[in-house]
Amino acid sequence: MKFNDTLKSIKLYEAGKPIELVVREFGVPKENVVKLASNENPLGPSKRVQEVICAYASKANLYPDDSMYELKDGLSKKFDVASSQIAIGAGSDQILEFISRALLSKEDSVLMSQVTFAMYEIYAKQMGATILRTPSYEHKVDEFLKLYAEHKPKIVYLCIPNNPTGDAMKKSDALEIIKAVDEETLVVVDCAYMEYAAYKDSAYKIEPKDILELPNVIYLGTFSKAYGLGGMRVGYGIANEEIIQNILKMRPPFNISTLSLAAAIEALKDEVYLEQALKLHTEQIKRYETFAKENGIKYIESYTNFITYLFDDSRNSSDVANKLLQRGVIVRDLASYKLNAIRITIGTESQNDILFEQLSEVMDLK
Amino acid sequence: MKFNDTLKSIKLYEAGKPIELVVREFGVPKENVVKLASNENPLGPSKRVQEVICAYASKANLYPDDSMYELKDGLSKKFDVASSQIAIGAGSDQILEFISRALLSKEDSVLMSQVTFAMYEIYAKQMGATILRTPSYEHKVDEFLKLYAEHKPKIVYLCIPNNPTGDAMKKSDALEIIKAVDEETLVVVDCAYMEYAAYKDSAYKIEPKDILELPNVIYLGTFSKAYGLGGMRVGYGIANEEIIQNILKMRPPFNISTLSLAAAIEALKDEVYLEQALKLHTEQIKRYETFAKENGIKYIESYTNFITYLFDDSRNSSDVANKLLQRGVIVRDLASYKLNAIRITIGTESQNDILFEQLSEVMDLK
Repeated sequence: MKFNDTLKSIKLYEAGKPIELVVREFGVPKENVVKLASNENPLGPSKRVQEVICAYASKANLYPDDSMYELKDGLSKKFDVASSQIAIGAGSDQILEFISRALLSKEDSVLMSQVTFAMYEIYAKQMGATILRTPSYEHKVDEFLKLYAEHKPKIVYLCIPNNPTGDAMKKSDALEIIKAVDEETLVVVDCAYMEYAAYKDSAYKIEPKDILELPNVIYLGTFSKAYGLGGMRVGYGIANEEIIQNILKMRPPFNISTLSLAAAIEALKDEVYLEQALKLHTEQIKRYETFAKENGIKYIESYTNFITYLFDDSRNSSDVANKLLQRGVIVRDLASYKLNAIRITIGTESQNDILFEQLSEVMDLK
Repeated sequence: MKFNDTLKSIKLYEAGKPIELVVREFGVPKENVVKLASNENPLGPSKRVQEVICAYASKANLYPDDSMYELKDGLSKKFDVASSQIAIGAGSDQILEFISRALLSKEDSVLMSQVTFAMYEIYAKQMGATILRTPSYEHKVDEFLKLYAEHKPKIVYLCIPNNPTGDAMKKSDALEIIKAVDEETLVVVDCAYMEYAAYKDSAYKIEPKDILELPNVIYLGTFSKAYGLGGMRVGYGIANEEIIQNILKMRPPFNISTLSLAAAIEALKDEVYLEQALKLHTEQIKRYETFAKENGIKYIESYTNFITYLFDDSRNSSDVANKLLQRGVIVRDLASYKLNAIRITIGTESQNDILFEQLSEVMDLK
């Protein structure tokens, strides 16, 4: 049986290692494993959301409202856009997949930063498209504009703030790229971590309304990070109706679960939780900056819920990550992104205590 | 912006109308709505599953184990196959999508029954493939073999038992088709409702092991029906490793939620629930057969958890379905499948009481 040629070049996404695997492979007791690898919200889901999940458990046999009326209504009010301008995905990941499948073919190219979210490439390669990357891992306006002008890619991906590096573009810089791109190209503005950037510095805050006057832009957001629902798989895309109606042709029915829909609807209402999560993060990330400075470790200034420690040649990131793993501390090695760096999710105070202690030992600090 | 040409011919899947919509549009109080339209398990999810969901609510912030080790292990033991022969999807729907995207292109055709599960066509059309259908709504061996020989389609879909009609092929008939198809064609044996057929008559029971000796077959199963987890979106495909490894290239990371994974693992263990669900169904479907006979309504003998009532020219299925809808009873009109028929999910005793009462009034029976 002959599979499509595009499959040959597809690498599988390397997910952060789950707690279960560390228990299985290294025999670390489950309660001792500290997972700071997947940018999950360390606060846990909001109590209100947990109550809703329990209340909806008895409805697990029922398909969700496939129109997702109430969730779209909530997002519509939050962002001051029409419900018809919103698509809901199983994570914003799935919106990326819809976009790729609705727009790309083997003749197309797509443009992204040197180091950025891995799924852009994977979904584009599934369609046989060519991948173009800027020279720098940061999103630099001039690099994007130069490659855009040279290749006229079908899609430009802006990951603001960027994952897995944590840096961000100012809104003014993002708009400079977006406005320079003509209507034949879709600009994907992936704002999965935007809540953290906006909380830190308003110059970095981008809202759907800021870009929707342009006909060729889609804004992506998620409930997986600041809203604490990584495990529930709910994200969204906001764009003009033509784009939304076209990408929705790729949406399978019931693409998010009944419990995920209920959880996201409640999470959107719980502003107290969101503030708590952002406050905890802001306090704790300062400890990572201090730790790095005290130990002569370089880091990328972060606008997300994680921090990237960059190592010099005296260290090897895979070695550090593996040693931590054997001690039950999971972080993300960025070697596969060609960075000698590890990405650490900012955890709770006690998780971070353990990280600092174990990292000090593994790196022989002090 | 130019979207792919394949999008033009895609119709969107028409999901069963949700309870929320009937409440919104017809002002029927939520507690009075009876939904017998989406083949959900009327028993509700198993109590053990509900407890697991509640217990896991506090982990909604954590991504699931993306290897799905435990669920695959459970299925592997149940079906006596290797874990590497199993792919998990967000419903068996998503396995259909992976198959379509991994195998099809514009040059290919796919073969299916005249009336069958709508997503086969939708996913195939997303890839630009040509749709071939047998003349009959039932799966007839000679019709499949004739069209297969004429067109050599890339995929043959066997929906056993068939949705939305409820009829089934005997295992011996299915094997006759499967064995006649050569290795260049994939035979998809979609057994979403198999638990009901196997419970009713062992001549209709097909297990993965029965077909896996052949290199070009994939067996699909789901937790949405007999296992009572329609809202959780978990299904699976079982085939030889080469097929599984190829279709998994289309799998997005974390394609089922943390709670869905936990729910499916528990559901697989709760055999008491499964037996209860099948017993309730068996008792209640007899009432539908009796009701039809007493009122001169033709029906298709069902091997699933629903029954299809076929109307003669004196009735219009859309009219009947709409009148029921306004009274808060949701069934599925099959007019869009070119059948003058309605499909009714077998409900609980009290739901079925209401259905019989309302249908009698709407159809002016007795």
